[in-house]
Amino acid sequence: MYRFTLPLAAIALLSACAQTPAPTPSEQAAPNNIIFMIGDGMGANYLTAYRYFLAEGKQQQIKPTIYDELWTGISSTWPDDQTLVTDSAASATALATGVKTFNGAISVDQQHLPIGTLMQQAKRLGKANGIVASSQVNHATPAAFLAHNPSRRNMDAIADQFFDIRIEGQLVPDVMLGGGLTHFIRDDRNLVAEFQAEGYQYADSWQQLTQLSQAPALALLADGGLPSVLNQEMEAPLQVMTEKALELLSGQPQGFVLMVEGSQIDWCGHANDIACAMAEMHDFALAIQSAKAFVDANPDTLLIITADHETGGLALAADGIYEWRADLIYGVQYTVREITERLMALEPAKLADQWRHWTGLPLTDEQLTAVLAAQHDQPKLYSLLNGYINQATRTGWTTSGHTAADVPVMAYGAGAEQFTGFMDNIDIAKRIMSFIQQSAK
Amino acid sequence: MYRFTLPLAAIALLSACAQTPAPTPSEQAAPNNIIFMIGDGMGANYLTAYRYFLAEGKQQQIKPTIYDELWTGISSTWPDDQTLVTDSAASATALATGVKTFNGAISVDQQHLPIGTLMQQAKRLGKANGIVASSQVNHATPAAFLAHNPSRRNMDAIADQFFDIRIEGQLVPDVMLGGGLTHFIRDDRNLVAEFQAEGYQYADSWQQLTQLSQAPALALLADGGLPSVLNQEMEAPLQVMTEKALELLSGQPQGFVLMVEGSQIDWCGHANDIACAMAEMHDFALAIQSAKAFVDANPDTLLIITADHETGGLALAADGIYEWRADLIYGVQYTVREITERLMALEPAKLADQWRHWTGLPLTDEQLTAVLAAQHDQPKLYSLLNGYINQATRTGWTTSGHTAADVPVMAYGAGAEQFTGFMDNIDIAKRIMSFIQQSAK
Repeated sequence: MYRFTLPLAAIALLSACAQTPAPTPSEQAAPNNIIFMIGDGMGANYLTAYRYFLAEGKQQQIKPTIYDELWTGISSTWPDDQTLVTDSAASATALATGVKTFNGAISVDQQHLPIGTLMQQAKRLGKANGIVASSQVNHATPAAFLAHNPSRRNMDAIADQFFDIRIEGQLVPDVMLGGGLTHFIRDDRNLVAEFQAEGYQYADSWQQLTQLSQAPALALLADGGLPSVLNQEMEAPLQVMTEKALELLSGQPQGFVLMVEGSQIDWCGHANDIACAMAEMHDFALAIQSAKAFVDANPDTLLIITADHETGGLALAADGIYEWRADLIYGVQYTVREITERLMALEPAKLADQWRHWTGLPLTDEQLTAVLAAQHDQPKLYSLLNGYINQATRTGWTTSGHTAADVPVMAYGAGAEQFTGFMDNIDIAKRIMSFIQQSAK
Repeated sequence: MYRFTLPLAAIALLSACAQTPAPTPSEQAAPNNIIFMIGDGMGANYLTAYRYFLAEGKQQQIKPTIYDELWTGISSTWPDDQTLVTDSAASATALATGVKTFNGAISVDQQHLPIGTLMQQAKRLGKANGIVASSQVNHATPAAFLAHNPSRRNMDAIADQFFDIRIEGQLVPDVMLGGGLTHFIRDDRNLVAEFQAEGYQYADSWQQLTQLSQAPALALLADGGLPSVLNQEMEAPLQVMTEKALELLSGQPQGFVLMVEGSQIDWCGHANDIACAMAEMHDFALAIQSAKAFVDANPDTLLIITADHETGGLALAADGIYEWRADLIYGVQYTVREITERLMALEPAKLADQWRHWTGLPLTDEQLTAVLAAQHDQPKLYSLLNGYINQATRTGWTTSGHTAADVPVMAYGAGAEQFTGFMDNIDIAKRIMSFIQQSAK
């Protein structure tokens, strides 16, 4: 069993040091509660795409989305190396600590020393903390708010730290909702039992989630990440978790910090799957709607939304054609990965009809021949099918990885005026940490 | 000879109607002068790329550019059809009139009726107007501020209207600096002589440009568009023209409207040529610097900067690699089109060395073989060479055309606070028209 070995006092010290004096918001603006929402991989073109997707591609129906309404600024995301392209771990570290680091690192610096996080700071100052993610709760982005590790891949060690790291004797996360059960109940350790022994309520189903009645609480709703929104029945799992987290955290006397990650926008981006991305963007938008409603009811709250980086080099036109067919995305009912697996299991004669049924798109004779030839070669079939959807919708992608694109910043509520114009990702963390410091005075 | 045949009274009426009451800026903010700068094709990723290009790709040297410093908002650009992807004409019409139209249209609506432009409004209210462009001065973007035509391709007819359209007996443009000589001196008409007969000073060289001493003035510095910045000696031709235009327009009692277009950012985007794009972005940045200095000296001026659309689906990473090599762009000394033509004229034995000399990049044996085989096939050679530069720098593109991406909005000076957050391209024109109306009271 990997155990966290750095002296906790060192973390406490580093955490205190990370409270840079930098941008000083006016005293009256300092919010008591922070809702920090991160759309993983959500570059600016995802917001544009979502606007036209919601309008079903019809110009008469175009109107500002909730992203548009809240848009205040833009942020750069480069990591602490010469690549200019960050991964989620380095960017989450920047957003959680105000310090840039190397790709793969979870809130440790180039010397692998832990960097204090804004949730550790919040706990020290008497606030409650929550994390919500559609990935594993110990995936890179949430991990950077609660753990320290030179590699995001050490997911068991990171889960251990969710329990083992104490700030003045207290556990740091008060609410954790998401996936990742296999990292919490293992042969070598049962973290769920340990959390329960510390008084945490526990849920491992959506039904049980509704019954969580107070913090501290832990819900692990899938072995790994949650199912892709497009492949399951719930319209908005992230919104459901966000509302539950806000319910559990509200009424905390010293306020709270809640981090909500729309984790799988990035996964759809890596897959270059536009329908998948739009479904995740919709769930994230609904979660934002719930957070905004909380701010309206609790004006001493800041809602700040950004992305850690852009994924895929998404562009809304391709191959020289002046058109983006947002209207066709509605017909695609599952992720391309899911459609690929379903088609692989079919009798060849049923293939064309089922493709049309699941995507709304025809297959030309030439395409059908290619699909039949690749029916039992998963990567090849996936690539063909995904290409057909991108070609029909005129969706362009340049990479299966991340890009150096700046990302949008949206803010609402107390202190929102601190997040206008151009900034760097560490500025976002510094301003939040400054608010946390001030609101505890 | 195509002559403008619509009654001028109709234009006058339409122009008056276009002064929508929409967003009302506070009275004291209304600027007397408007500098409206349009980076053609300049999507948000061009600004990000330029930041890292200026830093030579070294994270230690990254700092906010002038674009970053002035960034206030973001704008959608969809045209009046179902494509979602605008061309420069429809977008320039939106920016010049506050009305969306169809792709290709120069300030006419779906019925091909003229839509009054903000420069026609400004002239009616006693202001002077200027246009500066690195394309032909009668290219789509500047054309939409001064002319009306169902097709941007009717460039002679558009040039005619620069002279023929009168607002209360006066010519609309007071300063015109850019390319396009062949449209102004033709077999059928000599517009230069006609402008001179109306008292316009005239220049057809950079030397003569310096000698222009007062408005009205016309400079036509190339037969077509100006040479690409990367292929000629001047560091910043757009900046030189912008400074001259500001010199000629300053001191106008009722103030002025100046439109400056960084026209060729778009042309580099169509060519998917990243070094070309960065050189044009640099010239545009320097022109903005000069405009900002003017605002500092003349605080009753609004500087507003945006793009008409994004070109190329530019992304700062490609092919799954987490890296964007901004450092390698410095080595590329000419546009790929220019390098292609130079290589086509070379002895095969000199090809590899010259390529390295002009780009700073090596050619592998395999690449050299391919280049030699394509040496006399211009499109194929161009495609190969451009691919090598994009591959080396990890620059991704999805199209040779435009995309539906939102574009950045930057504002500075009097009334800049009206351009924050998300807006649509017609909102920009409406706010400017509202300022023009108010400042004339």
